[in-house]
Amino acid sequence: MSTIKVVLLRHGQSTWNKENLFTGWHDVSLSEEGKIEAIDAGKILKNYNFLFDYAYTSVLQRAICTLWYILKELNQLWIPVTKSWRLNERHYGALQGMNKLQVTQKYGEKQVTLWRRSYQINPPALTIDDPRCPRYDAKYSHLEDYELPLTESLSITLKRVVYFWENNIFPKIKNGERVIIVAHGNSLRALIKHIEKINDDDIINLNIPTGIPMICEFNHKMKFIKRFYLNNI
Amino acid sequence: MSTIKVVLLRHGQSTWNKENLFTGWHDVSLSEEGKIEAIDAGKILKNYNFLFDYAYTSVLQRAICTLWYILKELNQLWIPVTKSWRLNERHYGALQGMNKLQVTQKYGEKQVTLWRRSYQINPPALTIDDPRCPRYDAKYSHLEDYELPLTESLSITLKRVVYFWENNIFPKIKNGERVIIVAHGNSLRALIKHIEKINDDDIINLNIPTGIPMICEFNHKMKFIKRFYLNNI
Repeated sequence: MSTIKVVLLRHGQSTWNKENLFTGWHDVSLSEEGKIEAIDAGKILKNYNFLFDYAYTSVLQRAICTLWYILKELNQLWIPVTKSWRLNERHYGALQGMNKLQVTQKYGEKQVTLWRRSYQINPPALTIDDPRCPRYDAKYSHLEDYELPLTESLSITLKRVVYFWENNIFPKIKNGERVIIVAHGNSLRALIKHIEKINDDDIINLNIPTGIPMICEFNHKMKFIKRFYLNNI
Repeated sequence: MSTIKVVLLRHGQSTWNKENLFTGWHDVSLSEEGKIEAIDAGKILKNYNFLFDYAYTSVLQRAICTLWYILKELNQLWIPVTKSWRLNERHYGALQGMNKLQVTQKYGEKQVTLWRRSYQINPPALTIDDPRCPRYDAKYSHLEDYELPLTESLSITLKRVVYFWENNIFPKIKNGERVIIVAHGNSLRALIKHIEKINDDDIINLNIPTGIPMICEFNHKMKFIKRFYLNNI
């Protein structure tokens, strides 16, 4: 029996990646390079004859646009696309919008490494009156305050990502639908941790490159087999 | 009590509009001019401070791309978009892909006017082995053969459009959601006929320009009040 292949992809470079700023839920656009990465990812998938029945992405435009360019290359703009805040990047709390180098100078490298790389530790939280709070953003107006983070560790990100995976994406895949997920460095890291049962220490070493299609392969019983990147033929 | 405004929009110019071909369900892309029309429509809506909770479009890329450019201008790419074949252009049967002038030379102006303008008369149907049949297109693979047209009169188009309006769009509007619908000359004509109770003879005279936002205004009891175009401020 043939295997089941799910495509995961981290969005192309954003304007803030380029400027070395903590982004998180801040809704920045793709850079020109990010757009090219997305189109190239579409071309790679086309070369391998990938087609999809469903697509999933976050509510952040760098992911939505990456998916758009891919589906355009595949001539599949017509498939259903579900955009969920649960696939958003990890919320970076009060660090959002700050320069990574300046934050390191202020707090020291050790602290910053903990915020960026530990599984359980949160960056400093936003205060409730901070205009960067998700509650002031129309994208999240249908959500209750308790659902909206003021900061997140990777473990918190994982909970919402896995909730969405189990309730929305996984049932579709089990049903034989061909799925692509375009999301973010940390929401994908969380998803992969869950799928591959990677432990809390090791997940930190998983770095996902932008714009390279990644295949998660499952057997017909939906048991994970392997993960690999697709490169140009 | 304030009124309810629903935005309807016919997609921008397609490459086949430009070449004067019967298009129907054939999935052609926007022309460069069509892209500009779409962006301009987005700018007009932005000038009037329109924002949306839900968007609806067909499964044809000229409509999907028009909606995309509009939402991009509004910085609202994150809203849910539902794409349905029921909002597709009227199916033009065996005329699809043929040049309007050549069809007129072959069948005579009177016959072509009947096909194009009468409410009840179908253009010649596709035969079931014709590769242009929707059943051979992956977009429609989830549908039963009996649901898929081989040709359509405007009255047949109206049935599927109104079904989608009543079951999907109208309940959302009644629920206070702000809605935009990007569709096609004839699917919008059908929808407007239904909303405004226009009779079979008069609907033929309604010509909807491409890329100009059109507002359908309802009172709080969802009774239709008026329809008008939005132009640049």
